[in-house]
Amino acid sequence: MGRVTERRKVIRIRNGAVSTRPDTLVAEEPLEIRLNGRPLAITMRTPGDDFALAAGFLVSEGVLAERGELRNIVYCAGATGGGAPRSGEAESARGSNTYNVVDVSTAPGVVVPDITLQRNVYTTSSCGLCGKTSLDAVRTTARWSITDTPPVRVDPDLLAGLPDRLRATQRVFDRTGGLHAAALFTEDGELLDIREDVGRHNAVDKLVGRALQNGNLPLSRTILLVSGRASFELAQKAVMAGIPVLAAVSAPSSLAVDLAAETGLTLVGFLRGSSMNVYAGEDRIALRTAAAQG
Amino acid sequence: MGRVTERRKVIRIRNGAVSTRPDTLVAEEPLEIRLNGRPLAITMRTPGDDFALAAGFLVSEGVLAERGELRNIVYCAGATGGGAPRSGEAESARGSNTYNVVDVSTAPGVVVPDITLQRNVYTTSSCGLCGKTSLDAVRTTARWSITDTPPVRVDPDLLAGLPDRLRATQRVFDRTGGLHAAALFTEDGELLDIREDVGRHNAVDKLVGRALQNGNLPLSRTILLVSGRASFELAQKAVMAGIPVLAAVSAPSSLAVDLAAETGLTLVGFLRGSSMNVYAGEDRIALRTAAAQG
Repeated sequence: MGRVTERRKVIRIRNGAVSTRPDTLVAEEPLEIRLNGRPLAITMRTPGDDFALAAGFLVSEGVLAERGELRNIVYCAGATGGGAPRSGEAESARGSNTYNVVDVSTAPGVVVPDITLQRNVYTTSSCGLCGKTSLDAVRTTARWSITDTPPVRVDPDLLAGLPDRLRATQRVFDRTGGLHAAALFTEDGELLDIREDVGRHNAVDKLVGRALQNGNLPLSRTILLVSGRASFELAQKAVMAGIPVLAAVSAPSSLAVDLAAETGLTLVGFLRGSSMNVYAGEDRIALRTAAAQG
Repeated sequence: MGRVTERRKVIRIRNGAVSTRPDTLVAEEPLEIRLNGRPLAITMRTPGDDFALAAGFLVSEGVLAERGELRNIVYCAGATGGGAPRSGEAESARGSNTYNVVDVSTAPGVVVPDITLQRNVYTTSSCGLCGKTSLDAVRTTARWSITDTPPVRVDPDLLAGLPDRLRATQRVFDRTGGLHAAALFTEDGELLDIREDVGRHNAVDKLVGRALQNGNLPLSRTILLVSGRASFELAQKAVMAGIPVLAAVSAPSSLAVDLAAETGLTLVGFLRGSSMNVYAGEDRIALRTAAAQG
């Protein structure tokens, strides 16, 4: 995990005083994700948990939904691009291994949809590309639906306490200030997992991918907490993993709210101190006061 | 510009008190960028400045560098994907216009590199995919080099004052809390332009694209300020536009620092109050105190 951070020289200026010192930065490197030998996507990520990242990415894209659909994941040694990696290539040391190219093999019988590189949005939609197109794309590719019987009921006080626990658990953030974090909690507030990355979407993919690898999808009865904002992409990842509650420290976007409303995802934003906003799926939030029209 | 924000009902919880009210959210919708009729990329963005966003995206990808290379940009009406739009299609109302598909036409003679969809990273590199691959990709596609004669010299006090001016100028942030901002200043601190978007990279593309449309590339002798962090992608966009100074309110990544060091970009991070860290290109920062080893 030494590659999660890197050291660089920095010139610090504090009230006019100048000093030079080594500084710890969050590491960022490209990761190429191949699916059955075919290059699929490249993401800039913080090294570490790469197999989980690749698996979670494929859950978000609707390729994988259960552990049994995953055959294996390997690093491609000295990957030169183009052709499919040969069997056992990861161990053959055909060249130096950059550990930045992973190949995910699906189990026999798994039908791989043609996701190509136009992620999440189907440009052949007859209605033209719009927000609705993106919502439809998630709905048609979702392998899990958000169902909870009996319904998950989360107390606002429990939610209010989660960001502090996220920060307390973050291992790298305090050193670099450059990492986003995503954490998974049970409906009772038990911390299940936390992942960090220079990209918030990668942190969520790492969480979801680890869950797939452990046979824990769908992530029913869980709460996903993300540092920062809730974009459409993050809401999509929650939906694709079957997560019923997404909470963000900062603002959601309009399309994230629309997706949550359409799929039954509970979406909480601006989760700060004892305050929060509930944008969708409020039936899972245990409100003790009658709602008043503002 | 009404689409920059959207209204949604929200349930607010404040210290146990619950109220329901309309809330203003940052709008997020997909934008498909076509190049000479061929679908190239889809980005989730805040509507507005779409032509500038598309133009700036193509500057970042090394396709465009001068205004004369751009023939025109149109919305594709009722775009159905697939084939190239017919001449004048934007006005022909073949279907309802979602204003989410734009087609950029290059001028005759412009050689369009094969950027396909593997953005910025050349997977055919013989050394395997690594951070160095990403740096090389920027170096080989950069159309402008960062040169300034006489050298730009920026006073730290001037830099320190920029974030407050960014925030004061942000038109939407205070209402939604969900927008990233990017601002362009002269070396003397004059505000040239500011753009906002749900995606920080889009905000920068909008700035750079507007500069291309106005014939202002390369953006020599300017300072680019971004809310939040400085990733590799943002440093790349600065380099591709010929911007000499990139300042971020929060942390840079290791690869952003490496790219800055390799291309001569000045990279400032953690620009807060009178404090800042200089990670590369410190010759452009007017340091008044001799550097001491920390």
